[in-house]
Amino acid sequence: MLTKTWVGLEKWHEFVSNRNEQTLEEALSDNIIFHSPFVWKPKHGKLAAMQVLTNVVQVFQDFTYHRYFFSETGATLEFSAKVGDLTVKGVDLLEFDEDGKIKDFEVLVRPANGLQALGAEMTRRLTQN
Amino acid sequence: MLTKTWVGLEKWHEFVSNRNEQTLEEALSDNIIFHSPFVWKPKHGKLAAMQVLTNVVQVFQDFTYHRYFFSETGATLEFSAKVGDLTVKGVDLLEFDEDGKIKDFEVLVRPANGLQALGAEMTRRLTQN
Repeated sequence: MLTKTWVGLEKWHEFVSNRNEQTLEEALSDNIIFHSPFVWKPKHGKLAAMQVLTNVVQVFQDFTYHRYFFSETGATLEFSAKVGDLTVKGVDLLEFDEDGKIKDFEVLVRPANGLQALGAEMTRRLTQN
Repeated sequence: MLTKTWVGLEKWHEFVSNRNEQTLEEALSDNIIFHSPFVWKPKHGKLAAMQVLTNVVQVFQDFTYHRYFFSETGATLEFSAKVGDLTVKGVDLLEFDEDGKIKDFEVLVRPANGLQALGAEMTRRLTQN
């Protein structure tokens, strides 16, 4: 049935609420590939993915998950959030490795003005560090 | 199991390959709500959704579905396509009514440059008609 769970999905949810980097580290495969909603080129490896994900949870306000969809090896999580005064919708497309950790993390966001605001704020944060 | 099918999903796939408006008409609920990747405000009703969807399948080239994810009442379909010389990834979030027709159709596209190109071309087509 549609009740499959993975340790990476559980740990990801924990991280979204507790913002603890150790929890995020446990959710991700060492060889994770992260696909940004804003740029085409993916980021490779856990450190690069963690840098993005620890920042994005600070940019998104009122972050809430809604619908969940599953395949045999992955899940789609629908979310809504605020970026500044704009409301956005998004999806996380996740694939899990044999240990249940997230090995592929792709994010899509709509509409265009919210995506632009997210991209601008993420660029500001990641180029300041 | 993850093998649930709906007539709306079957008809939608038929439409993507045959481009027959009658097939699309049979896929959609009369009261469908369509959420564009580009603008926040949804479009209500079958005629409005059909106007967008018949144009978008002409704008997207090399349109291919990849991963599928399911819930009890809906599905997420991952796709890739070309918009001009840009490659985009996207997802269709679909919900089905009690007759299996699509009652909610939400599209998200990445990355930002591909989404902008899609929005510009769709605006051009929909304001010319």
